[in-house]
Amino acid sequence: MAYFNSVGKIAYEGSRSTNPYAFKFYNPQEMVAGKSMEEHLRFAMAYWHTLTAGGSDPFGQETAVRAWDSWTGLDLAKARVEAAFEFLEKMNLPYFCFHDIDIAPEGSSLREFYSNIDIIVDQISEGMKSTGKKLLWNTANMFSNPRYMHGAGSTCNADVYAHAAAQIKKGLEVGKQLGAENYVFWGGREGYETLLNTNLELEMDNMARLFSMAVDYAKKIGFDAQFLIEPKPKEPTKHQYDFDAATTISFLQKYKLDGHFKLNLEANHATLAGHTFEHELRVARINGMLGSLDANQGDMLLGWDTDEFPLNIYDSTLTLYEVLKNGGMGRGGINFDAKVRRQSFEPEDLFLAHIAGMDTYAKGLKVAARLIEDRVFDDFIDQRYSSFNEGIGADVINGKATLASLAEYAMNNANPRRNESGRQEMLKGILNQYILAE
Amino acid sequence: MAYFNSVGKIAYEGSRSTNPYAFKFYNPQEMVAGKSMEEHLRFAMAYWHTLTAGGSDPFGQETAVRAWDSWTGLDLAKARVEAAFEFLEKMNLPYFCFHDIDIAPEGSSLREFYSNIDIIVDQISEGMKSTGKKLLWNTANMFSNPRYMHGAGSTCNADVYAHAAAQIKKGLEVGKQLGAENYVFWGGREGYETLLNTNLELEMDNMARLFSMAVDYAKKIGFDAQFLIEPKPKEPTKHQYDFDAATTISFLQKYKLDGHFKLNLEANHATLAGHTFEHELRVARINGMLGSLDANQGDMLLGWDTDEFPLNIYDSTLTLYEVLKNGGMGRGGINFDAKVRRQSFEPEDLFLAHIAGMDTYAKGLKVAARLIEDRVFDDFIDQRYSSFNEGIGADVINGKATLASLAEYAMNNANPRRNESGRQEMLKGILNQYILAE
Amino acid sequence: MAYFNSVGKIAYEGSRSTNPYAFKFYNPQEMVAGKSMEEHLRFAMAYWHTLTAGGSDPFGQETAVRAWDSWTGLDLAKARVEAAFEFLEKMNLPYFCFHDIDIAPEGSSLREFYSNIDIIVDQISEGMKSTGKKLLWNTANMFSNPRYMHGAGSTCNADVYAHAAAQIKKGLEVGKQLGAENYVFWGGREGYETLLNTNLELEMDNMARLFSMAVDYAKKIGFDAQFLIEPKPKEPTKHQYDFDAATTISFLQKYKLDGHFKLNLEANHATLAGHTFEHELRVARINGMLGSLDANQGDMLLGWDTDEFPLNIYDSTLTLYEVLKNGGMGRGGINFDAKVRRQSFEPEDLFLAHIAGMDTYAKGLKVAARLIEDRVFDDFIDQRYSSFNEGIGADVINGKATLASLAEYAMNNANPRRNESGRQEMLKGILNQYILAE
Amino acid sequence: MAYFNSVGKIAYEGSRSTNPYAFKFYNPQEMVAGKSMEEHLRFAMAYWHTLTAGGSDPFGQETAVRAWDSWTGLDLAKARVEAAFEFLEKMNLPYFCFHDIDIAPEGSSLREFYSNIDIIVDQISEGMKSTGKKLLWNTANMFSNPRYMHGAGSTCNADVYAHAAAQIKKGLEVGKQLGAENYVFWGGREGYETLLNTNLELEMDNMARLFSMAVDYAKKIGFDAQFLIEPKPKEPTKHQYDFDAATTISFLQKYKLDGHFKLNLEANHATLAGHTFEHELRVARINGMLGSLDANQGDMLLGWDTDEFPLNIYDSTLTLYEVLKNGGMGRGGINFDAKVRRQSFEPEDLFLAHIAGMDTYAKGLKVAARLIEDRVFDDFIDQRYSSFNEGIGADVINGKATLASLAEYAMNNANPRRNESGRQEMLKGILNQYILAE
Repeated sequence: MAYFNSVGKIAYEGSRSTNPYAFKFYNPQEMVAGKSMEEHLRFAMAYWHTLTAGGSDPFGQETAVRAWDSWTGLDLAKARVEAAFEFLEKMNLPYFCFHDIDIAPEGSSLREFYSNIDIIVDQISEGMKSTGKKLLWNTANMFSNPRYMHGAGSTCNADVYAHAAAQIKKGLEVGKQLGAENYVFWGGREGYETLLNTNLELEMDNMARLFSMAVDYAKKIGFDAQFLIEPKPKEPTKHQYDFDAATTISFLQKYKLDGHFKLNLEANHATLAGHTFEHELRVARINGMLGSLDANQGDMLLGWDTDEFPLNIYDSTLTLYEVLKNGGMGRGGINFDAKVRRQSFEPEDLFLAHIAGMDTYAKGLKVAARLIEDRVFDDFIDQRYSSFNEGIGADVINGKATLASLAEYAMNNANPRRNESGRQEMLKGILNQYILAE
Repeated sequence: MAYFNSVGKIAYEGSRSTNPYAFKFYNPQEMVAGKSMEEHLRFAMAYWHTLTAGGSDPFGQETAVRAWDSWTGLDLAKARVEAAFEFLEKMNLPYFCFHDIDIAPEGSSLREFYSNIDIIVDQISEGMKSTGKKLLWNTANMFSNPRYMHGAGSTCNADVYAHAAAQIKKGLEVGKQLGAENYVFWGGREGYETLLNTNLELEMDNMARLFSMAVDYAKKIGFDAQFLIEPKPKEPTKHQYDFDAATTISFLQKYKLDGHFKLNLEANHATLAGHTFEHELRVARINGMLGSLDANQGDMLLGWDTDEFPLNIYDSTLTLYEVLKNGGMGRGGINFDAKVRRQSFEPEDLFLAHIAGMDTYAKGLKVAARLIEDRVFDDFIDQRYSSFNEGIGADVINGKATLASLAEYAMNNANPRRNESGRQEMLKGILNQYILAE
Repeated sequence: MAYFNSVGKIAYEGSRSTNPYAFKFYNPQEMVAGKSMEEHLRFAMAYWHTLTAGGSDPFGQETAVRAWDSWTGLDLAKARVEAAFEFLEKMNLPYFCFHDIDIAPEGSSLREFYSNIDIIVDQISEGMKSTGKKLLWNTANMFSNPRYMHGAGSTCNADVYAHAAAQIKKGLEVGKQLGAENYVFWGGREGYETLLNTNLELEMDNMARLFSMAVDYAKKIGFDAQFLIEPKPKEPTKHQYDFDAATTISFLQKYKLDGHFKLNLEANHATLAGHTFEHELRVARINGMLGSLDANQGDMLLGWDTDEFPLNIYDSTLTLYEVLKNGGMGRGGINFDAKVRRQSFEPEDLFLAHIAGMDTYAKGLKVAARLIEDRVFDDFIDQRYSSFNEGIGADVINGKATLASLAEYAMNNANPRRNESGRQEMLKGILNQYILAE
Repeated sequence: MAYFNSVGKIAYEGSRSTNPYAFKFYNPQEMVAGKSMEEHLRFAMAYWHTLTAGGSDPFGQETAVRAWDSWTGLDLAKARVEAAFEFLEKMNLPYFCFHDIDIAPEGSSLREFYSNIDIIVDQISEGMKSTGKKLLWNTANMFSNPRYMHGAGSTCNADVYAHAAAQIKKGLEVGKQLGAENYVFWGGREGYETLLNTNLELEMDNMARLFSMAVDYAKKIGFDAQFLIEPKPKEPTKHQYDFDAATTISFLQKYKLDGHFKLNLEANHATLAGHTFEHELRVARINGMLGSLDANQGDMLLGWDTDEFPLNIYDSTLTLYEVLKNGGMGRGGINFDAKVRRQSFEPEDLFLAHIAGMDTYAKGLKVAARLIEDRVFDDFIDQRYSSFNEGIGADVINGKATLASLAEYAMNNANPRRNESGRQEMLKGILNQYILAE
């Protein structure tokens, strides 16, 4: 292990340390709300951003300097596996996630791709055993290869559809082999550029068919991971079918797939869809669909997926508030689907960025736990809706009320209960106090 | 009838006329795709924008000069009814739409409001008989009165909920009396400003309960109008529950209401949600949920609901393309939910704006009909997806394929069918030719 | 003084207090960076949001409950003045700001308006003497009245232009009488809805002429306030001429007005223009144009001016960072151009919102001061650009370099200085530590 | 010439042709407003999109199938030159534009890059002579290479600055050799990711210094092309210094460079900055800064630079309206800075897209010319502002008015001239008639 010589293992040094290579807030063993931070925050490394990506953008070439860049082909793939485990250990990250093409070269045929995957998966399996690191989820990349230009499950080319199925099949087998806790579908090309050439209905039907086949195959091979769909509204396509949580739930309901899937929600995808991340989390939570998180943040003044490291304390607090309210995320975790800026091209930046992100989540966890413990919002909300606990309000809840009974009540209600202030500014001020005055 | 003396009845004069007060493209009797334009384009006047609104905005007072402004109270309400029928006749608009508070003053009690409504509805009923004009839909305004600050069906105040129920009950009775073809729900305050004070789950449950009661009551009184929900993502609230077509369908599915409702889709609401209008129409269409249209357009560089008259030929063409593909809209119509600019404050502007809007839709209808007749996009699409008509593609469609069978096919597929260009630029160029070179 | 009986004077109780009606971070006498918090943070109350506004929005009526609402006409205006000083004293706000129509009814003629202004300004003058409160700035509202539908300085109607001039003249006289430290121009209607009916060049020329006349008149009457222009990109108009800081500077340069004006920058206007607030502040600062602040925040997912109270610690920190780097704002201050939400309609909300806002700025000030004191960013930046301190870099700075000399240098530069990481994630992590770990 | 065998020369066949490989509206020799279409519409091919780009995006690999892809290195560069001239001839495009790295490989040193450029420029020069094609503009790509990660003129690394200077020097020499009519600067990396590590003032000063050096060097070598700056607000960086027309003009004014530069305006950049394209054109026009056009369009629902072919008739009409009002663009032209969609990957799509784009501009030209000829908007505007032609309005224009004289006039103006409707809807309706009813 020699790919990150310049950085040692990251330790907890507390908030007053001036060492930039140390956690200030993330203390894995510290107990918060009845569990250790480590148990709450099942952090994962995104293989693609940390090992595979190079910092290119639509207007510029790769910038990243990586010690494994001297290798090529399968040797490069193997070097990355070594570097991955070194990074996971130094950063104290318990989980990782990958797409098939992140870990192994596609080669010139599907057969060769399978073979490359087998070689690398064996290596990963050994690494997992020796380090104790675990696979949060894996997935098949069905958006980068030119064959997927028109979609994978939603392609207009049946041979491409078959190829996608083959990748998913292998992905499920790999997931089973490595004990993945979840299996993810992100439909980067499942969408359209223009309706003028698109059979929307057929495309969505075919996507649902592919999901159903995946459910069947996982059952057949005894792979019991949680299936997750990751919504995103757009980019790379103009319009993606899994637009947001509500749209994806609607899709799953329509095709009777809602019993088999939960959602992998990403912060930057939420804001691209016009929602706060906490909105998406809440929608998933009240529908029993909160599966796992892709932790990052967008730039609210930019209209594309910037995948920045999550460094905003408001966001991490409200995110973990929903997670705690959900009783945790079960088999899900917190995957840093975040990339260092193109100008943060040095290996050290990978560490510095993860440290800052993990610290932001750690602090958010502690604030969220105290907000819940003190029932800051819960008490306010309970009081606010209390008129539905008795009288005409209770009639509404228990199904006794009708339009006629309510209208009669309203007609004869000489002194209607007056509204009370929503106190938004006060509540946000209290949130600030919890964040800033611990 | 003397409120619009300056403008006579609008006639069709053909495209070369220089008279700004004449239709150039809208010829009610002209046959298009087997029906008259009038039958296709069931145009409606929005009572609120044409009769009630005054041109105020968040930074400015009302500007509109209206002949009925000398009246007040019930007299004003009556004058507006007279002006409404005058306008409908001069403009050759067959339908109109209103909220309860557009037509009658709220008074100081629910009882008084009911009474005012009764008086005005009788007047409207007479006007309908004498002119033959019809009510496309009515609705209850449950967003303007301060009591609805926290919502109507989603309020935290049970007494307010009862008041909302009373308004809906009256609305259904009025709809029945006037033979409304549809009844609309737009939840302007059904949403939240901040999740910090919001019980999202209870609010959505309560909304669903109110909808169910409305379904029951309509059935009870024998009011057989089509129920419609109008999605909007935000404004006035930060987040509205009926965000877009997919979200609303998801809500209706969850609460088993999808058999009782269709969607009233609005162009400007679509774009605020991040969708093209044709996207929302297509989603509704393939789900059998396309109910009616609120015709307008937003300014794509502004982030609020500008409700401009629909004057973009691309939008009207693609809108009517979906409508024709849907086999029309059944009981639905095309309601000009559009307001003249605050600087277009003269009565004449109401006419000039409707003329321009109706002409835009008329031209769009003709272009859309020819695109369908010539199978311009249909043939391209059929060919594009033809690989699903036979072989492995057909296996996918008819349910014979599995991940394993597809993977085996892919593995042994020496010469996969190559992708073909989506030809987006060519198709858009052809659309231009159909629009510009008739 | 009896308009806010439910709330007493707000005091500093430190961060551990659970009293929502107390400052946690704002301690006026606490010294920060060599001055008291009070001297740094010249807070001002916006008369319009606190005394005049009622909580209406484009879809809803007023909701605010205010003790002075029982009065009308001039009596209402007088009651508001009393309430204003009560509020200023209880909140410990040293400054206030107003538009002419906020304080006095327009009446039925310009003469009557002048007269009403005189009456109220006398009352305000007495209130200022007795309380020691000061006028940060005043301005003329030339956007609400229907006459300004087409603009004020940019109107197409010369008589309206004259009326605007009359309002400004009076505004300057009032400013002089009350000792205003600044005089503001916000061009709410100085813009256009469509270029199809707009003479852009004439409109901008006329605006510049009006500004020049104002400069001349102020000089003539010996009113030495700092003149300020407040940029905003849009809303209420589609496009406003003072789009952002750079556009406004360009306008002032073109018309040789840049020596007479600085900028009054507003956070929510910055984000509507696509900029962070700190960007606008930086642009103004390096051009010597930073005049004063309108403190608020927008909702980054909404496209209109929400004017929320500024409650984001990142924003307040970076704002005050720029202010401290500017050596303060001279005669400028921090005006809470922020409104309580429509659902926060109770008088108490006015206090709770200002408390939260002032606390957010107070904490931001302390963080910003420590960041500067510790040279956290300064040292990094100095090192980052150090290659311009010597050799070829110094030649560039001091004007010795030419394309030819640089090209020759580059051609023969065997070992170009390598780039170093921008360390964005580390710097943001450090910012978090300064905010969260004090 | 054998790179586009599948497509022959594109001819004008008139609007009724069903051949997709023929112009329907663009007839080079047709006279419009006193000049041939060809003289008005100085169309240019963008070398990078047509010859160099391959259809990759942030989530996908290249898709384009090009006949020259079998070559590599300098041979590839030479093949592209041949293909370029073949394309220009077949498409009847008189001009082309390129960045230095579009035409020649960078090699491993600046010296090698210069040498490669020389070889290819000689080949281009011969091609120009034999075909009569001309260079609208060239430029230096100072954004793709990793060295420019922190900027070129705004870099923090003096050695990188020198390299940029060397590229510009060569670019000016190449422009002179090929007789370029303009020379363009687009500052793709001239901006920042975060202000936390940025010396904004130094960066802008250094950019200005580099522009000044370029002006000096062009003068020295007798290169008399028009210098152009191309504004863009963001992407790839978070914030770019040449944000929009007004910002760029402000920059040029501040550094006394406004006499040496005009603007190269791009449609998609305008909308990313929150402006319509016609707004940017108008701002440039009234400031005498309209230089040249990058013709494309963005997707108004997407937040990045989609660079689609310009196929919207409203945009092309209003664009050419401004150009005609400007008396043409002098040495500027209409460069198709537009790329075929990733799914339009076949060589034929390059032709189909240019045909559709050129036809859209041709039709727009004809509509714009008729709108001007008929004085449709001019007469309306002249009437609208006529109050400034006499009396108090004329006093404003000619500088006689003061605040005092205007206030006195307003005070005694018993019957102020009433406002008249802006007639936006009518004007847009007329625009539709001109577009649709020719």
